[in-house]
Amino acid sequence: MTIAETLAERIAGVRHDALPAEALHWARVAILDTVGCTLAGASEPCARIVARVTASYGPCLVFGTAQRTAPLDAALINGTASHALDFDDCSDTLGGHPSAPILPALFALAETRPADGQAFVAAYVAGWETETRIARGINFYHYEKGWHPTATIGVFGATAACCHLLGLGPEVTAKALGLAASFASGVKANFGTMTKPLHVGHSSRNGMLAALLAADGFTANAGALEHRQGFLHVFNGEGNFDVEPILREWGQPWDIVRPGVAIKQYPCCGSTHPAVDAILSLVREHGLTPAMVERVDSWTHPRRLAHTNRPDPQSELDAKFSVQYCLARALVDRRVSLEHFEDDSVRDPAIRALLPRIHAAPHPEMSMASTEHFGAEVRVTLMDGRVVSAKVARPLGRGPGNPLPMELLEAKFLNCATRALTMDSAERLLAALRRVDTVADVRLVTDAMVPAAALAAD
Amino acid sequence: MTIAETLAERIAGVRHDALPAEALHWARVAILDTVGCTLAGASEPCARIVARVTASYGPCLVFGTAQRTAPLDAALINGTASHALDFDDCSDTLGGHPSAPILPALFALAETRPADGQAFVAAYVAGWETETRIARGINFYHYEKGWHPTATIGVFGATAACCHLLGLGPEVTAKALGLAASFASGVKANFGTMTKPLHVGHSSRNGMLAALLAADGFTANAGALEHRQGFLHVFNGEGNFDVEPILREWGQPWDIVRPGVAIKQYPCCGSTHPAVDAILSLVREHGLTPAMVERVDSWTHPRRLAHTNRPDPQSELDAKFSVQYCLARALVDRRVSLEHFEDDSVRDPAIRALLPRIHAAPHPEMSMASTEHFGAEVRVTLMDGRVVSAKVARPLGRGPGNPLPMELLEAKFLNCATRALTMDSAERLLAALRRVDTVADVRLVTDAMVPAAALAAD
Repeated sequence: MTIAETLAERIAGVRHDALPAEALHWARVAILDTVGCTLAGASEPCARIVARVTASYGPCLVFGTAQRTAPLDAALINGTASHALDFDDCSDTLGGHPSAPILPALFALAETRPADGQAFVAAYVAGWETETRIARGINFYHYEKGWHPTATIGVFGATAACCHLLGLGPEVTAKALGLAASFASGVKANFGTMTKPLHVGHSSRNGMLAALLAADGFTANAGALEHRQGFLHVFNGEGNFDVEPILREWGQPWDIVRPGVAIKQYPCCGSTHPAVDAILSLVREHGLTPAMVERVDSWTHPRRLAHTNRPDPQSELDAKFSVQYCLARALVDRRVSLEHFEDDSVRDPAIRALLPRIHAAPHPEMSMASTEHFGAEVRVTLMDGRVVSAKVARPLGRGPGNPLPMELLEAKFLNCATRALTMDSAERLLAALRRVDTVADVRLVTDAMVPAAALAAD
Repeated sequence: MTIAETLAERIAGVRHDALPAEALHWARVAILDTVGCTLAGASEPCARIVARVTASYGPCLVFGTAQRTAPLDAALINGTASHALDFDDCSDTLGGHPSAPILPALFALAETRPADGQAFVAAYVAGWETETRIARGINFYHYEKGWHPTATIGVFGATAACCHLLGLGPEVTAKALGLAASFASGVKANFGTMTKPLHVGHSSRNGMLAALLAADGFTANAGALEHRQGFLHVFNGEGNFDVEPILREWGQPWDIVRPGVAIKQYPCCGSTHPAVDAILSLVREHGLTPAMVERVDSWTHPRRLAHTNRPDPQSELDAKFSVQYCLARALVDRRVSLEHFEDDSVRDPAIRALLPRIHAAPHPEMSMASTEHFGAEVRVTLMDGRVVSAKVARPLGRGPGNPLPMELLEAKFLNCATRALTMDSAERLLAALRRVDTVADVRLVTDAMVPAAALAAD
């Protein structure tokens, strides 16, 4: 059996009622988070341009609008939106964003035929497992060479998930995976441009297309992963991949459980997150306000500080990579959220007054040799002479060992979703997503996303 | 300036009135031939499935039908059809099929806004020049590694052509080319399946999408070709490409003139073509009929014989790779055309009676060391004891030094086009294509492709 054939048998065998409760929990968490990020990203220029250029007619919602479009176009547009803010979930296995290629395709497909929540979640877990198993055989050589794994590997996750939701058998699913090898694309040279989130929409669309074509009798080589001129050899090259980890231990445990989902709590560079967590714990514990603070010292891992040491940020993008700005925001607002990187908030006088008091340095005890580079320590010197400090090893949300408390996850969701919806609508959608695997038809979820203003105007 | 910026300036500078007559001649030849091949391929299952799966509404013709669809979908469907029979034109520079990625996108775009024949042909030549210049820097390492250059390099040709037709300036065109680096895909592991022609449709669609997105303000890295994690490094790798030939001698001469267009005269493997040319010259010169022939000896280059020595073909695909079958067909029918590889014609008793008399062997004077491997020699022993023979160095159509006579090119076109159109309609379309660069609106050409039966049914 080829790699694709082996994976296809396992994909076809995924059943909701055989998934452990932990996998279902993390699936609900990741789906909730991805929908929120997609609604927040929907109004970004990259998503708006893709929607304009591919405008069509069909049954599938363009998230954040009342527009309906064809399923492949919906996957492209919503996939671009899901990653527009780089705020969506991460996977250490993938070296990228596991949900964004899968869910836009799956939601769009579920709007073209009835699918209940159980089928939807099972398809999603099958997609996640497929892409992260493939990633185990090719990362991080693949990532470091310049491929964008969220797209080049994510396309297999999207394909697997769509095949599962379509109820395709192993033989057809294997062909779809072979076809996906010819759709894999996306180079990191385009990071920092709108093309980065486009990679994700493109892979979501292409995964759905591979599944739909195979379902209709299209042919492809089910050996296209290991073929001498196939995915592994052409993308990674001889000696730079290993088939064995791809086929080992499917679902034991499910990758979504361990190493699991990493959720980003703040819409800024992940390297700033542990310092923000540390200062927010001090803010809460000691009731800190800016007026009480004489000086803040922040120490983070030198690998992480290199790109986040920006004491005087001049733009929104600059602010996302400024640990000083993010710490100032946490002190001023007691949270860090989307509006803090919009509308010239980088010029906010309250922030400008604080910035000179915030000092960042590499942590003397955190070594460049270590890959455990997720920690930070923050010390605040108060006007009254007291000194308080906090140290965190990993930011909240970075894996299931350190989960984001549900109220913070949902606060992030509401902050994101209200970019497109009223608070009332966002809360109704949240209620539906909390129990996504019990809905009788996934369209009850997508219908809950249509902005109320659009409904009223109908 | 980056590679994409340099190319973009040259692309934007291509003007129909500055192109030499030879370039315009070969453009007309290649456009005519590609339209014919697309009409012939339109009824193939690969094209039909893609059309079903992506069905949408829009102004753009699905070739070979009366269906109209959205421009991006038309490029995908017609691009798949154009290469469905592997009968479309070739380029020695590209190591692939230069027109199939470009023209489907260009025709679809020209149906969304007025474009005259001069603008169309200039855009086409700009696209051809772009893809073949890039190919000079990366082939044949790129090809041998397992990439499908028609798709992975063709996407840049489609992008350039669409940018030119849209009238985009160099800055926007450079971004579109950078974006195309993230769309390049297609591995040879899928050769021999429907996914091979799909690669071509995918690259045509993606080229158009890159141009449309860039035109609407989408951002991408104009340095994405030479970036450390960009097209050249990621697809070929350090030491396996050379930037200098990409930028040298743009249009001096135009690649479409030299080395130029190779046209396939017969819908079977190119390695059988010189032997077929040789026997047809004997058929015409000596009035040969099957009854006159006692024995045929055919000698071809050993590299070419390896996959075409099939004395007893059992299927349509087998027949396409059987030099014995193709020689028998030439003797029986005085030509080799599409119907000879359909409908069980491999069982035709007249052919079966001839096959045992046809003997193929490697040519003793053609060396494996040589890359001039396009020749064949054929000797026919007649029942009356006479022996006649012919030798050809290269098949007709393989480059401008050995052009296919216009009447044979047009005979191929009519054979292809009548798969979809009546002979009357095909001849009217041929008349339009002979002077494609003088039409006031390219829609006059596409409208001439709508099957008469479909018009009558309207």
